[in-house]
Amino acid sequence: MKLYTPRGVKDFLPEDAYWKYLLEQRIRKAFVRWGYQEVITPTFEFFETLNIGSTSSEQTYKFLDQEGQLLALRPDITTPIARMVTTRFINELKPLRFFYLLNVFRHDDVQVGRQREFYQAGVELIGSDSAYADAEVVALAIELFKTVGVLDFQLDIGQVDFFNGIMNGCVNSKTKADIRNALLRKDFVGLRNVINQSDLKPGTKKVLMELPRLRGRSEILDVAASLVENDVSLAALENIKAIYELLESYNVSEYVYIDLSMVKSLDYYTGMVLEGYAPNLGFTLCTGGRYDNLNVSSEYKNFATGFAMGLERLMLVLERQGHKPELIKTEILVIGPDRLRAAQYVAEQRNKGVIVEWDVLNFSLEQATEYAKAKGIKKIMVFANGAEQCISIEGGEAQC
Amino acid sequence: MKLYTPRGVKDFLPEDAYWKYLLEQRIRKAFVRWGYQEVITPTFEFFETLNIGSTSSEQTYKFLDQEGQLLALRPDITTPIARMVTTRFINELKPLRFFYLLNVFRHDDVQVGRQREFYQAGVELIGSDSAYADAEVVALAIELFKTVGVLDFQLDIGQVDFFNGIMNGCVNSKTKADIRNALLRKDFVGLRNVINQSDLKPGTKKVLMELPRLRGRSEILDVAASLVENDVSLAALENIKAIYELLESYNVSEYVYIDLSMVKSLDYYTGMVLEGYAPNLGFTLCTGGRYDNLNVSSEYKNFATGFAMGLERLMLVLERQGHKPELIKTEILVIGPDRLRAAQYVAEQRNKGVIVEWDVLNFSLEQATEYAKAKGIKKIMVFANGAEQCISIEGGEAQC
Repeated sequence: MKLYTPRGVKDFLPEDAYWKYLLEQRIRKAFVRWGYQEVITPTFEFFETLNIGSTSSEQTYKFLDQEGQLLALRPDITTPIARMVTTRFINELKPLRFFYLLNVFRHDDVQVGRQREFYQAGVELIGSDSAYADAEVVALAIELFKTVGVLDFQLDIGQVDFFNGIMNGCVNSKTKADIRNALLRKDFVGLRNVINQSDLKPGTKKVLMELPRLRGRSEILDVAASLVENDVSLAALENIKAIYELLESYNVSEYVYIDLSMVKSLDYYTGMVLEGYAPNLGFTLCTGGRYDNLNVSSEYKNFATGFAMGLERLMLVLERQGHKPELIKTEILVIGPDRLRAAQYVAEQRNKGVIVEWDVLNFSLEQATEYAKAKGIKKIMVFANGAEQCISIEGGEAQC
Repeated sequence: MKLYTPRGVKDFLPEDAYWKYLLEQRIRKAFVRWGYQEVITPTFEFFETLNIGSTSSEQTYKFLDQEGQLLALRPDITTPIARMVTTRFINELKPLRFFYLLNVFRHDDVQVGRQREFYQAGVELIGSDSAYADAEVVALAIELFKTVGVLDFQLDIGQVDFFNGIMNGCVNSKTKADIRNALLRKDFVGLRNVINQSDLKPGTKKVLMELPRLRGRSEILDVAASLVENDVSLAALENIKAIYELLESYNVSEYVYIDLSMVKSLDYYTGMVLEGYAPNLGFTLCTGGRYDNLNVSSEYKNFATGFAMGLERLMLVLERQGHKPELIKTEILVIGPDRLRAAQYVAEQRNKGVIVEWDVLNFSLEQATEYAKAKGIKKIMVFANGAEQCISIEGGEAQC
């Protein structure tokens, strides 16, 4: 009999479930105040639909249902929302602002902060191709970090077209892929080797060699502009400049770094991309960007930008920073044989919002005290012999 | 390209997602005040583990993972919690009180109120075999119905041992199964036919014929006691009498009917069972009972009782009763070119808890008004030419 759970999934025991709930409440409040509305998509859909988003399909949990259809557990929420927008909101006035608090599934290597089922908090802002929309989602990601209390976080923004513009002349798809992969892994030694061994033009090589240094505040935009001549890269720089200036107006640019070497594993990004970090953490806390080409239907093009934040990762970094909240405890344990009088008291207290446990084991006062101590319950109310008595577990009378 | 979702699963659009959230909040509040703590189990586990709970295994969504292990989507939450208790809480002082708000998966016929992915709110009270525990979960189910505002609901309680005691002498397993199935479907004509055609003893036949009439308030317990002689059935009647009396002390017995013909499709119930109903609804709103024999480990026996409530069904009955809440709307739409001054205003309003959308499409006042009208936004705040103006979409000035 298998009493353990499969690798990569886990139980949230009360302490963690409560904490997850508190985090979600704070995040939800921020989403709502910014005008975002919650949506919930199915846990599984047709594999064919989910695969449009091109999360590596080997990582997707696939299965046949009893009718022989190929289904899959959602590996992200962006693709299902794109499907939903196309079918349910095509004629709705734009913009649309959606948020979600949902679990996703990826059969990945299991490590700290990387489970196979994990929870995401995210938004999609649909219907605008302007820098305003990109700046809004970046500012909202920062708002979330502040709301939940992550210390020393930072947010990197990039623009996939800066790199695309540089590589435009490159016809060798292996070189392209190798460079991209080195950038993805932030393997700058490997990057240099690939560039040196490639047959790229000297000008292209020079810009690519500089990529790892193109990370900083707005001043690096001028440096980058002096290195490239192609229109695609230059337009990307203009776009990221506009977004950065808007973030200054949001008064959050202190948290933002521009990283022109940022590329993404997902193919669907078309403009600004973002990644959130905290110190001493080997993974991103959030990820996202603009994805104007995630077309689930050829008849319909969505302008869209958004991000997703990993809830378990957020919990991990907050715990390391000493911010794990205590589980809310029962306040009063009620015992004793006078159940009729106790019933009235219990109902009154609960109606006032007091957390009350009512004995189901015929506890003696001694048993009740042992139980209360173990569970962190501070008071015991005894209904016996027509009288009632409130006892503090630290000894003596108390007010119940 | 499949733009639709598989049969039996659905999107919650903002109106329904918001409503589901409101319901869950109210339910959560009640659970917490009664001393229950939230747990979250994985969406999938080993099929072998989930199958202990014996939900009809053809209804379970099974799949092989990339490592060749047979996994399944959880068809209920009771079995995973039993597994969790055995592995993580075995040495903990009892009782344990857990609640959950989670989705489950069953490949069943799709009808109104019966989807293949659906959400449940439920509790498990573990470690007590007393009527106190059973009465607590029944009273809590009633508290939930009242909390969320279901009108004219009722709760039926039964005791599986009443029927088991009657059938104890019956060795013909087909007769047993046929009678059970007729009771499950509440097919009392079919029941009579099976009984008449069976080789059961006349005394047994007589009691079984009476079963459909053994539904009512506590007076039916005496009627039932006069019909049976076996100890198992008589003990069941004593047990249900004790529970009913406790429910009187909870002051909720007006909602409770005793139904001694109640049997359950799940095999794991061992004592009191319960079902919640609302008028003109062809399905139960909640279901549950005592399951002392759901042993995921032979070394360990749990006393346990609990229930699960179907959230979508609750939403359906509330909607029919006219209780669907309105989606919370954005209060102010902010537009205009003076983004720097607007930024400060937007941040201030959001910090005060006001829901503010900030334009991302360079809306003219005309476009903004059209959008606001469509979305139910009452006010537009314009920042332009160094001035600001708050406009009501019904015409004229307003306070923003």
